[in-house]
Amino acid sequence: MRLAVLKERRPAETRVAATPETVKKFIGLGCSVAVEAGAGLASGIPDADYAAAGAEVAADPAAALQGANIVLKIRAPLAAGEGEVDELALIPRGALLLGQLQADEKAAAAYAQAGIDAGAMELLPRITRAQSMDILSSQANLAGYRAVIEAAGAFDRGFPMLMTAAGTISAANVFVMGAGVAGLQAIATARRLGGRVSATDVRPAAKEEIKSLGATYVGYESEESKQAQTAGGYAKQLSAEFYAEQAKVVAAHIAKQDIVVTTALVQGRKAPQLVTEAMVQSMKPGSVIVDIAADAGGNVALTKPGEMVVTENGVKILGWHNWPGRISGASSSLFARNLLTLLTTFWDKEAKAPKLPAEDEIVRGVMLTRGGAVVHPSFQAAKAA
Amino acid sequence: MRLAVLKERRPAETRVAATPETVKKFIGLGCSVAVEAGAGLASGIPDADYAAAGAEVAADPAAALQGANIVLKIRAPLAAGEGEVDELALIPRGALLLGQLQADEKAAAAYAQAGIDAGAMELLPRITRAQSMDILSSQANLAGYRAVIEAAGAFDRGFPMLMTAAGTISAANVFVMGAGVAGLQAIATARRLGGRVSATDVRPAAKEEIKSLGATYVGYESEESKQAQTAGGYAKQLSAEFYAEQAKVVAAHIAKQDIVVTTALVQGRKAPQLVTEAMVQSMKPGSVIVDIAADAGGNVALTKPGEMVVTENGVKILGWHNWPGRISGASSSLFARNLLTLLTTFWDKEAKAPKLPAEDEIVRGVMLTRGGAVVHPSFQAAKAA
Repeated sequence: MRLAVLKERRPAETRVAATPETVKKFIGLGCSVAVEAGAGLASGIPDADYAAAGAEVAADPAAALQGANIVLKIRAPLAAGEGEVDELALIPRGALLLGQLQADEKAAAAYAQAGIDAGAMELLPRITRAQSMDILSSQANLAGYRAVIEAAGAFDRGFPMLMTAAGTISAANVFVMGAGVAGLQAIATARRLGGRVSATDVRPAAKEEIKSLGATYVGYESEESKQAQTAGGYAKQLSAEFYAEQAKVVAAHIAKQDIVVTTALVQGRKAPQLVTEAMVQSMKPGSVIVDIAADAGGNVALTKPGEMVVTENGVKILGWHNWPGRISGASSSLFARNLLTLLTTFWDKEAKAPKLPAEDEIVRGVMLTRGGAVVHPSFQAAKAA
Repeated sequence: MRLAVLKERRPAETRVAATPETVKKFIGLGCSVAVEAGAGLASGIPDADYAAAGAEVAADPAAALQGANIVLKIRAPLAAGEGEVDELALIPRGALLLGQLQADEKAAAAYAQAGIDAGAMELLPRITRAQSMDILSSQANLAGYRAVIEAAGAFDRGFPMLMTAAGTISAANVFVMGAGVAGLQAIATARRLGGRVSATDVRPAAKEEIKSLGATYVGYESEESKQAQTAGGYAKQLSAEFYAEQAKVVAAHIAKQDIVVTTALVQGRKAPQLVTEAMVQSMKPGSVIVDIAADAGGNVALTKPGEMVVTENGVKILGWHNWPGRISGASSSLFARNLLTLLTTFWDKEAKAPKLPAEDEIVRGVMLTRGGAVVHPSFQAAKAA
């Protein structure tokens, strides 16, 4: 098995889908590994470290992909017209491609057409057995940490209560909206730093999780919100009425906050707006809002994806792209391990090759295409011709 | 008493010498207060907040200083040729000026000549009674906190050990050099964030303080280092031999660090070089060095004051100017309280004016000039003509 790792070329992408640690493991499984030169640089991994782990450092994507059986990517390969290189055309027929592909029907059809067996890691079912392969969870965790670190960096005061000879500085009020994986890590990090932390989430189960991390729960509760969790554990889209009631409770709370971290993502949809312009205006000068959902449209009315907005009343809104990519060493490390775990789980030791049983729940969840056909139920309408 | 607060005009200065909190207290003492428009903006304090506290918002420095009896500054007022405004010329004869004046003999002579009673807050004696007025201490504390926050921001991984489904990410190794007020706060903050923290200091007393904060002590000890503390509690300049031995111990340790925070300042001198170019080169790509002493020449061979240097081996060296100024809301708040405390300590309630007894240890330590003469022993050579 020849395994290829490319440099990521999409904007704001700093991660890499394999690390020297996982390269060593793949070689241990009997693979040869080609890593494109410079692939790890934005994650702090020089080519020499890949070489030391046993990888061949390939000069360009064509050389890396030559004869590849498995291709590891963070984001979908560039197709014709999407950038400097048509990566898709360079992937050999029959290769297995794994990454956060964010495919639509058209892209799925293109993978089928190209004879690429494409696995979209973000579609992994949320079952216990798959947890260690879950890129959404591993990346959200780091996004939550990073959000608080950057909030602390943008804030002109401190998080902890500081008792000094000159007097006491009070702790920062930190409000985390959405207590999924990212939100819970944001709560934990803000608590570590000494903030006075509160949080909200539409899912009733989140209330206990928030409290167990030592934060205060803030929120509106209704019959509807009691059903607000999908079987997979994600937040469900709720009615406009619910969001309006929730907004009232939040509006009163938010005016007293120094830091707000919004993390509400609804799978496959535009992120819900949780913080209105009026709420932003109610905040004190110097307050900081971090919108982890910026790339999905944002949870804050004034978020500009990829930018830091400073409002007229002196509130900073950080809407950076790709939050996990802003802590690329750690996020690459976990993403790479997620891919390694999926492959080792389905590794045929004798054949020294992955063996992906079509009936397996994980395989069914992830694989978009196999043997030139679209096989994923959600993309069936786009079956290859 | 009319009290004037100016906007700071020196480069990289974001702080302000009074806050709405201290303005209110001064008014309570019977003062009137004029604050130059925009003085608090860089610290997140709009003019309206000063007005609400009872201050008059003055359009420019001339208007603010008109008839002022007390002038509060962070840094020394601009003299002729130092900037857009000759602030010094606008300060009325007989006024009391307080700030971190960093005066030399020439500047002291100029204050005397101008008939300004100038108090240099950085010369405050380090005695128990003066602790609550100590700007060096209050600002160093925040610099130490800020150094770690910015290190975490520049670092491409996390500080805490993260145990995730995808595997464990180990904690960052953080090494704090110099365990004065800034260093101790850096240790505490890095520990809060979950780092694996070690520290060093030439003063033997620091060893116990380092350990009491849960960090590991690293260092070379000798007869000389056992005497390495001045009576005032500052670090003393030691011999070249001592620094060489210390450097050997540090060199071995530093190669294993992810984060290094250097805080070694020797009062009135260029900062000692603690981290050589070879030490920087021994560090892993992605490591971060924060040099709090950048403005005093730096503790790190490659520091460029005011810049972030990225070395060829991928180490980031943050040598920003004015570390406390990078957390301006908090640092202004404490600086302003330090000034307030000094004035209230020497306040004559009946006269509603400060009364600074020449024989008082604090007054003797701080006052450079009085009644047109240089009175401070360290600046006697520069007596006004």
